[in-house]
Amino acid sequence: MTTAKKAVIILSGGLDSTTCMAVAKQEGYDLYPLSFFYGQKAAIELDSAKKVSDFYGVADRHFIADLNGMIRGSALTDADKAIPTNRDEATMEQEIPATYVPARNIIFLSIALSYAESIGAEAMYIGVNALDYSGYPDCRHEFIEAFQQVINVGTAAGAHGAGIQIKTPLQFLSKAGIVQLGSELGAPLQFSHSCYFGTDPSCGVCDSCLLRIKGFQEAGVPDPIPYAVPIDWNVK
Amino acid sequence: MTTAKKAVIILSGGLDSTTCMAVAKQEGYDLYPLSFFYGQKAAIELDSAKKVSDFYGVADRHFIADLNGMIRGSALTDADKAIPTNRDEATMEQEIPATYVPARNIIFLSIALSYAESIGAEAMYIGVNALDYSGYPDCRHEFIEAFQQVINVGTAAGAHGAGIQIKTPLQFLSKAGIVQLGSELGAPLQFSHSCYFGTDPSCGVCDSCLLRIKGFQEAGVPDPIPYAVPIDWNVK
Repeated sequence: MTTAKKAVIILSGGLDSTTCMAVAKQEGYDLYPLSFFYGQKAAIELDSAKKVSDFYGVADRHFIADLNGMIRGSALTDADKAIPTNRDEATMEQEIPATYVPARNIIFLSIALSYAESIGAEAMYIGVNALDYSGYPDCRHEFIEAFQQVINVGTAAGAHGAGIQIKTPLQFLSKAGIVQLGSELGAPLQFSHSCYFGTDPSCGVCDSCLLRIKGFQEAGVPDPIPYAVPIDWNVK
Repeated sequence: MTTAKKAVIILSGGLDSTTCMAVAKQEGYDLYPLSFFYGQKAAIELDSAKKVSDFYGVADRHFIADLNGMIRGSALTDADKAIPTNRDEATMEQEIPATYVPARNIIFLSIALSYAESIGAEAMYIGVNALDYSGYPDCRHEFIEAFQQVINVGTAAGAHGAGIQIKTPLQFLSKAGIVQLGSELGAPLQFSHSCYFGTDPSCGVCDSCLLRIKGFQEAGVPDPIPYAVPIDWNVK
């Protein structure tokens, strides 16, 4: 029996959170993966989260929180809102996209925090990265800092105990950097799923697929998952 | 049809949140009450929340979010943790009580925030008050300020829109002050329920009952709800 320190990992099953699992593992944490069903069209990502949890031998403690009905107002959740496709990166960065989910990461962090506090975890990992998703306010470094302050003053662990730290190892990495990091650490990227439409093979044209593909291309590594459109993995 | 401004009210069905409903109504908001089932032993409070919503004519838009299984580690939720009774106020204030629920208000505010953002509400009310519950870190003014900063930097409404304000009209009121305010505004305190055990009549000996009783006594108003123990309403 180990007495390793514990970390809750917010695990969507995508490229970023799968890489976070690998980082937390390497940093010596016992992994407590936490996933969310919130009515997302890409609920297939939860299958990826299960496979990733199983890969790390922690499938038995993988918790999927059911938030269905509590989150709406996004193209990722609402049937009457379309997921944009074939957008160039400059356009993606100009505005908050239709795929923004109101307060999603705030809810995820809150539930992860409650879970972390109740099991005595000292850290929680979230795979936000500001460079690629500059359109999402809840991925920015200043948002993470603000939430850390909420933990420090608003929880028993923060106000009177050893505290709980938010870990964002991908915060300042490009998507290519994340691919490289995940590959180096042996993260099971072949099980990860990023497509907003939740199709298998992945669509290859939504913002999430486009950024992922570009990341693998720039890293010079072919993406192990299949796409519905042909991709040239030799382009840098 | 009105075009009034909207507010989400975090409504447990207790004395404080019922008074918040009255304050928000008086401040001209269309009320969107939001309650939570989180495995609390006092789930009976949700019946109170329904009655209070009905009193204000908004039962049809009263949303009860089901968080069961996502929150644990508190005497209010866990069968193997006892709710303390007959404690004096000095003891209550000395330490974080067993009835502290890990990150509860952070989760409540997060889900209220997502709801507020998706319906275009400009405010959300929470009935925290620091004076009586100094043992709860997530009721303090500095916690609310930290969470407001999360909203300001971490949401589309905060970072790019008109913002969403957390309203805490009870923050600096004593329990007697809350009773007076609620009474003046015609809040249906007879429907509210505060007992941690969730019994009807209320136990009269848990921290929540003790503080409520003292508040009514100091305000010189008899509490309209029944208790399992005799109470002298003429003591100030």
